[in-house]
Amino acid sequence: MVSVEVAEKVRDVARKLGYLRNPLASGLRTRRSHTVGVLIPDLTNPVFPPIIRGIERTLAAHGYVALLADSGNSSKNKQALTEGLLARQIDGLILATAHRKDKLVEKCLDFGIPLVLVNRTVDKHHVASVINDDELGIKLAFDHLVGLGHRRIAFVGGPQNTSTAHERYRAFLKLARLAGLAVERQLTANSDAFTEAAGQSAMNRILASHPEPFTAVITANDLLALGCLDAFHEWGLRCPADISLTGFNHVRFMDRLKPRLTTIQIPHDELGVRAALLLLEQIGKETAPTTIRLKPRLVTGDSTRAPSKNQRWPAADPVKAPRSTRHPRAVLGAS
Amino acid sequence: MVSVEVAEKVRDVARKLGYLRNPLASGLRTRRSHTVGVLIPDLTNPVFPPIIRGIERTLAAHGYVALLADSGNSSKNKQALTEGLLARQIDGLILATAHRKDKLVEKCLDFGIPLVLVNRTVDKHHVASVINDDELGIKLAFDHLVGLGHRRIAFVGGPQNTSTAHERYRAFLKLARLAGLAVERQLTANSDAFTEAAGQSAMNRILASHPEPFTAVITANDLLALGCLDAFHEWGLRCPADISLTGFNHVRFMDRLKPRLTTIQIPHDELGVRAALLLLEQIGKETAPTTIRLKPRLVTGDSTRAPSKNQRWPAADPVKAPRSTRHPRAVLGAS
Repeated sequence: MVSVEVAEKVRDVARKLGYLRNPLASGLRTRRSHTVGVLIPDLTNPVFPPIIRGIERTLAAHGYVALLADSGNSSKNKQALTEGLLARQIDGLILATAHRKDKLVEKCLDFGIPLVLVNRTVDKHHVASVINDDELGIKLAFDHLVGLGHRRIAFVGGPQNTSTAHERYRAFLKLARLAGLAVERQLTANSDAFTEAAGQSAMNRILASHPEPFTAVITANDLLALGCLDAFHEWGLRCPADISLTGFNHVRFMDRLKPRLTTIQIPHDELGVRAALLLLEQIGKETAPTTIRLKPRLVTGDSTRAPSKNQRWPAADPVKAPRSTRHPRAVLGAS
Repeated sequence: MVSVEVAEKVRDVARKLGYLRNPLASGLRTRRSHTVGVLIPDLTNPVFPPIIRGIERTLAAHGYVALLADSGNSSKNKQALTEGLLARQIDGLILATAHRKDKLVEKCLDFGIPLVLVNRTVDKHHVASVINDDELGIKLAFDHLVGLGHRRIAFVGGPQNTSTAHERYRAFLKLARLAGLAVERQLTANSDAFTEAAGQSAMNRILASHPEPFTAVITANDLLALGCLDAFHEWGLRCPADISLTGFNHVRFMDRLKPRLTTIQIPHDELGVRAALLLLEQIGKETAPTTIRLKPRLVTGDSTRAPSKNQRWPAADPVKAPRSTRHPRAVLGAS
């Protein structure tokens, strides 16, 4: 034991000599590194930075720092990065990368490290998770469109191995059935990534199947919605004049677009704050896994309006058939 | 020494038993952790994710992983996070946070860790850096506007303690002087952050000083440009009908805005790739510090056009005086 004054003096001299405090060494006493690992699936997806900001701020207020790792949607990276984080004596781990069935989650549970999932969760719900109420989000979009008078509504979803995409898709099917709307297989397309390119490709598949005209599209994420806008453009469809469109997440800049996107605002910051608090609680003592579901809200832009009586609808495929279209009629129509 | 087969077998059994490879322990042999720290000033600024993606991809190709830390523009965090990274036996450090005079950079140099600055550099140029040619970027914007016929051009800059903001501001002053344009102090405003709010506030200061009408604005970053659009809106000015506007960086979604922003595309991915390569070189052997300057290009949107003969110009301050305006005339004009 040393007096506070002596400790102060040592720190002072050490600082002047250019010594750096070693949190691992100082953790030898407390057995804490005061560091938390955060694994992100895609740093360039704008939904994640504001969630992480909430995590970082909350951790900082409790004397913790976050080390981030970005897996770039690769499960190989996910594994390597997590092992790297675990080896660095982190006190806990927040995963934004969970798949519905996730080996890495199981491994972390076996390893016994305090663990919280954020934004996405696993099917088993046996891990502490902080997620958005995705069913409510789709309901807000659906009710908004039905309220405007839409009856033929298409859906563009995300990768079904994530809870967010799966919940949003299921919610759409359920709501459509409850509302007595015919759900045609042709009018729904789930893409394999939450990206603009994947959204464009999915909407191209729907349009290339030449369905009866529909007047609105619900998407499972803003980037997919932007991809739909690109597809509309290829097919000569105007939004919202010919088709209404909703996004999901309300990522940055969506209210500066043309048209401003009607979308579902998920509570990014609160997702991060709650995930950090839940993890800190677990670091303190073992706790039973809980799932916290936060409420989203509808943000109305001008990508949605009542269906038009003068809806333009493409008689044939675009002259330059979209590359992603594999439907044979697309080739015929292009001639 | 063990045979390859035995090593394989051990790894296999270990994997089955759920052991995780400890990169620190395996680093005992090679004295390498194969981990690189990357410090980011603001994760929510969309200029950084694509740079980091370039870093991560390049490191991965060489068997390295990146641990990221986001300082949230706080120098206290910057210090704590860097110390945390250094204590975790990283092999090198990439800083995207440099200020023109930066104590942390000096400390890292003293510490002797391989170090590369990316996007921003220090005045002394005594550290390996990979940056954009900011002077050329401003020249591209300036020549574009002068080519369209603009003669009265305002400038909204960023925090002058960063090399990017400083270079861009200096380039503007130099170009205006060379072109024989009068540079009025009233027409330039440097903000203290690269954010939309700071850009709005800076443009409000310029407009609230009631300068002679100007027809174009060059900004030092896209977020500042978006803030200028907000200020234009408050003052009843239309872009590009009344004022042309250029951004800088070409961050995501800028070509989906209304109006699509004319901006300067910096080579995000290449900045990251080169920074990673330069660091890997340094980890291999000591090398003399070099500054690599990459070339940007102009991306023409529709936020710029020739000056209009029917330019609208606000006769008085907006009825709702902007909160950020501290100029006394703003208060008078609001009555």
